[in-house]
Amino acid sequence: MRTRITELLEIRHPIALGGMAGVTDAQLAAAVSEAGGLGTIAAAKESALSLSAEIRRLKDLTERPFAVNVPLMLTAASELVEVIIKEEVPVIITAAGNPAAYTKTLKNNGITVIHVVPCAELAKRAEDAGVDAVIAEGFESGGFASPHEIGTLALIPQVSDAVKIPVLAAGGIADARGFAACLILGAEGASIGTSFLATYECTRIGKAWRRQILSGDDTATKIVARGVMPVRLLANSSSRELEEIIAAGGSKQDIQKYILKADWMAEADGPFPCGQGLGLIKAVRTVHEVIESFVSGAEDLLREKAPQFKISREDPGVELNYAEQ
Amino acid sequence: MRTRITELLEIRHPIALGGMAGVTDAQLAAAVSEAGGLGTIAAAKESALSLSAEIRRLKDLTERPFAVNVPLMLTAASELVEVIIKEEVPVIITAAGNPAAYTKTLKNNGITVIHVVPCAELAKRAEDAGVDAVIAEGFESGGFASPHEIGTLALIPQVSDAVKIPVLAAGGIADARGFAACLILGAEGASIGTSFLATYECTRIGKAWRRQILSGDDTATKIVARGVMPVRLLANSSSRELEEIIAAGGSKQDIQKYILKADWMAEADGPFPCGQGLGLIKAVRTVHEVIESFVSGAEDLLREKAPQFKISREDPGVELNYAEQ
Repeated sequence: MRTRITELLEIRHPIALGGMAGVTDAQLAAAVSEAGGLGTIAAAKESALSLSAEIRRLKDLTERPFAVNVPLMLTAASELVEVIIKEEVPVIITAAGNPAAYTKTLKNNGITVIHVVPCAELAKRAEDAGVDAVIAEGFESGGFASPHEIGTLALIPQVSDAVKIPVLAAGGIADARGFAACLILGAEGASIGTSFLATYECTRIGKAWRRQILSGDDTATKIVARGVMPVRLLANSSSRELEEIIAAGGSKQDIQKYILKADWMAEADGPFPCGQGLGLIKAVRTVHEVIESFVSGAEDLLREKAPQFKISREDPGVELNYAEQ
Repeated sequence: MRTRITELLEIRHPIALGGMAGVTDAQLAAAVSEAGGLGTIAAAKESALSLSAEIRRLKDLTERPFAVNVPLMLTAASELVEVIIKEEVPVIITAAGNPAAYTKTLKNNGITVIHVVPCAELAKRAEDAGVDAVIAEGFESGGFASPHEIGTLALIPQVSDAVKIPVLAAGGIADARGFAACLILGAEGASIGTSFLATYECTRIGKAWRRQILSGDDTATKIVARGVMPVRLLANSSSRELEEIIAAGGSKQDIQKYILKADWMAEADGPFPCGQGLGLIKAVRTVHEVIESFVSGAEDLLREKAPQFKISREDPGVELNYAEQ
């Protein structure tokens, strides 16, 4: 499959690993890049020093393109961006902030800039700021969320209409159907989170988190901390505890601390981010299997749906009796 | 386009008019049925007498199949169902309740039963209760909403996997891209609300509501009365007033009363239901034009996307260097 995203990023398949703090490390990112996608290291929990080390570790594992994801609200954001420039990272994925202050410097250093947006207006602003592509992230997505809460199906065509640069879709995409649907909606690639959590190469999450992904259905996640710092988590004792912290007047800092300091490897409940597509994820697979199932499956769907619905040029169309009355 | 939905309902195009209280009257429903879709009268604001009259008015306008939509939470629900049986309505669309108590009687009277569901588990239960099809309604949808809040893109494949009966998609579908995407996700038809509000045949809404649909973007709606009786409305002075009513301890009854007693024809703000796809709706069209644009557009997309993405059987696939290390 070739789109402007595969061309822009020089990758084989237009699928990016969604950056997940403390989870998408060099190993998982390298596996995605080696399988033909865009691996992503999350910078959110890293210092300048540890991010630098993680980038080098990734470069030992693959020579293919990869990205580092930086939430711009981090106090260390500009320091982390400097590391990204110094380490010659090919792609940066910025989120949760305005990329305008960074775009020029990044692009002058040959770095491709992708910005995560929750609505059409902010996509347009990111394009005006000079980014190369946007990830339009819908309401179904796991992790920290936008208060705009626009569902992926409604979001992608509206973002696609708002910008000329290519769009990657994110939020609730957990199999070939969701990926192919996003291509139909106007996206030219997808950023995938939860499906990559349930892979052998994802070694930063423990049994509890993985089990809750594999056993949960479409109702198993919820947005917590709405109005303070919304985040989509698996509904469990930790998400309930976080709700109690909010009810007691918890601040943004309290929420960030509770979530980012959690033990992902725990064998009990934790504040585990997860997208709404989890009911489609039934087994642990390799990263290669996930990407292959998305891409081959989407190609098959796009080739085969027309005959399946008995679509033909010879359809007689409607008879408009009503309007003639 | 032929699917199990066009066969089940004996209609030309697998597109239903979403029932909207006080808005989807005989005239709008007849226009949709005459254009080859499934027109729907909403029973929510009707008495047995007025519903009966509306059904007869519709039968004067079209001989094609149509539906009546009944929220089962209404105190008058069973009385309205009796009217539907007596007036020999071909299709009933039940919502907001358990269809089990009605399914057998309805089917014994030759009525096709479609039930609206917000998640996979309730789709399965509706199938077990004997309904003929489900409408899987996602978070993006306008009007009264489920607390499950599952985005349409994540919802449709999970519901499709849960049931054998055909699925119609609803929520945020406002052009051919959304409709085609839902077919890819596993639906065999769609239930469309907001797009039909912006038609010449929709005469029950006034200038203010229509103007706010045509001018709004993807951020223009919001869920109000979360935790009491959630409803997606256009964000305006009325939605803010309703939030104040809730903040002051307003009940379900207060919300229903505020919304259903509103003057839809008002030239000022009102509590106007609207889906998240509104940014895709740019002009008032005929019902025929809306249906034609959805169906022909989706057919074209499904035929043309594969070549657009340069998909071919000859794609070399991935090389899995990483897993071999």
